[in-house]
Amino acid sequence: MNEIKIFCPATIANLSCGFDVMGLCLEAIGDEMVIRKSYKNGLQIVKIVGADLPFEIEKNVAGVAAQSLLDAFLIKQKKTVFELDFGFEIEIYKNIKAGSGIGSSSASAAGAVFGLNVLLDFPFTTHELVYFAMQGEVLASGSAHADNVAPCLLGGFTVVRSSEPLDIIEIPSPDLLFATVIHPHIELKTSEMRAVLPSDVSLKKAITQWGNVAGLVAGLFKQDYDLIGRSLTDVIVEPVRSLFIPEFDKLKQIAAANGGLGCGISGSGPSVFVLSKGKETADKIAILFKNHFEKTTYTFDIYVSKIATKGCQII
Amino acid sequence: MNEIKIFCPATIANLSCGFDVMGLCLEAIGDEMVIRKSYKNGLQIVKIVGADLPFEIEKNVAGVAAQSLLDAFLIKQKKTVFELDFGFEIEIYKNIKAGSGIGSSSASAAGAVFGLNVLLDFPFTTHELVYFAMQGEVLASGSAHADNVAPCLLGGFTVVRSSEPLDIIEIPSPDLLFATVIHPHIELKTSEMRAVLPSDVSLKKAITQWGNVAGLVAGLFKQDYDLIGRSLTDVIVEPVRSLFIPEFDKLKQIAAANGGLGCGISGSGPSVFVLSKGKETADKIAILFKNHFEKTTYTFDIYVSKIATKGCQII
Repeated sequence: MNEIKIFCPATIANLSCGFDVMGLCLEAIGDEMVIRKSYKNGLQIVKIVGADLPFEIEKNVAGVAAQSLLDAFLIKQKKTVFELDFGFEIEIYKNIKAGSGIGSSSASAAGAVFGLNVLLDFPFTTHELVYFAMQGEVLASGSAHADNVAPCLLGGFTVVRSSEPLDIIEIPSPDLLFATVIHPHIELKTSEMRAVLPSDVSLKKAITQWGNVAGLVAGLFKQDYDLIGRSLTDVIVEPVRSLFIPEFDKLKQIAAANGGLGCGISGSGPSVFVLSKGKETADKIAILFKNHFEKTTYTFDIYVSKIATKGCQII
Repeated sequence: MNEIKIFCPATIANLSCGFDVMGLCLEAIGDEMVIRKSYKNGLQIVKIVGADLPFEIEKNVAGVAAQSLLDAFLIKQKKTVFELDFGFEIEIYKNIKAGSGIGSSSASAAGAVFGLNVLLDFPFTTHELVYFAMQGEVLASGSAHADNVAPCLLGGFTVVRSSEPLDIIEIPSPDLLFATVIHPHIELKTSEMRAVLPSDVSLKKAITQWGNVAGLVAGLFKQDYDLIGRSLTDVIVEPVRSLFIPEFDKLKQIAAANGGLGCGISGSGPSVFVLSKGKETADKIAILFKNHFEKTTYTFDIYVSKIATKGCQII
């Protein structure tokens, strides 16, 4: 195989109670990438469509992630880049908007390492790919977090139990689980969204949070949709971050009144997600969100997607 | 059925990362109770063996729990206690030592409500029994917590996702999971063990803790013993409470060096538990614990038990 086209899915990190550890993979929203072997050594980004991103490898999230994989491959093979008789060209077709909170940089980072791994004939496991993709996240956000790249590569739900050493746990998604995502077009500064996080929390609230984490994980394994819904609450981060998200309380109210299992902030926002049992409910909530947002001054995008069973894949 | 004999199992609450929400049920350690219908209205405790406990219903954990169930039953039946043409006699055979940290009061409370429910022909679900048993815990410790009575009634592992409203989640135990429990004979004051709890914790540690909670729950569902082991850590409560438990660090070291999956404080101590894959490892750790403790001035008990698939049951 010398050229592949890849679907790189959008992801939702945090998932209310699962702040900083949980994430899920969407099926219907994502970028595409083309990666091909070339006669030129090393990596080249040759085309970027849909976003104004740098072509320099070391300034591009996909480039940095791909480079870290390629470096590790060469070490494994005990070769220099010049001893490899091929290099790679990368084309990036962005659909996920930067700053939307549904894993735009993660999709690029994950897609790049997934693609290289295929064309190199699978030198690394998918779990190992998470580590390389995280190097792209360092460029994007300054920290090596896996809560988007893990579900983007592995599909379904993931738990980042530990970052050092990296320990990613896969959790299958119940069959009928759908997400509605609304992306209001506002810019939230990552630094600001970090600054509002409390440095300390009460033990009481922390216990409530991990009781809900236990409930959410158990609910996913048991395919108990009501339990998933009861557990999708966040007593720690949502109360402070939701203040920055337009119409958050109203969205939550609409979701709750119309059969949504739970509603929260996707990543650090501004996107808001709702999980529902069945596409019908997810669609209905999308329409109600649209109707509501059309009354405001915000422009926005709305998506409905099944939770993906697979992460990045060849298309 | 007019008389039953019940096994009321010991339980381990908290389970390291699962502080205040998780618990498990032991198979090989527990009290026995005999409950029979009598011609005298209301409840009477007629025999207590193995512990010096009050016979007055309102001063006895089993009595208080049983009374709360009986009251609810009478309300349901729209009857007064004098309109019920029988009452109950309760005999309590204690094997679980009070203050051991493996759910002594919970076994009594759970056994009493389980027994009455059987003799009354199952007016309540097992989940409802948890609520009545919790009323016994109020007498024992001043707070209505379910982290011991829930696994004692339901078996396996349980999560108390929420206390108000009560939301108990059952998690099946992997087949090969065994516990080693050592009870050093020291008295820990509950008030003191509460006083050492921090009122606030860093968000960073809280995230570590709920990452481990997610890992533990996922490990139990996946029957992934290594994941269970990696997740059985507690960065919040154990560091402060373990200082009160004799030889804690040494026990932990022995467990880790000999195949134990994880080692922590049972409830609020002083008992220490180890989970192992397979009875052989659990037995070996028990012997090593015994050998070590015999070099100290402490007297102690040691138990090895499979994690029970069932809670309280008729024997």
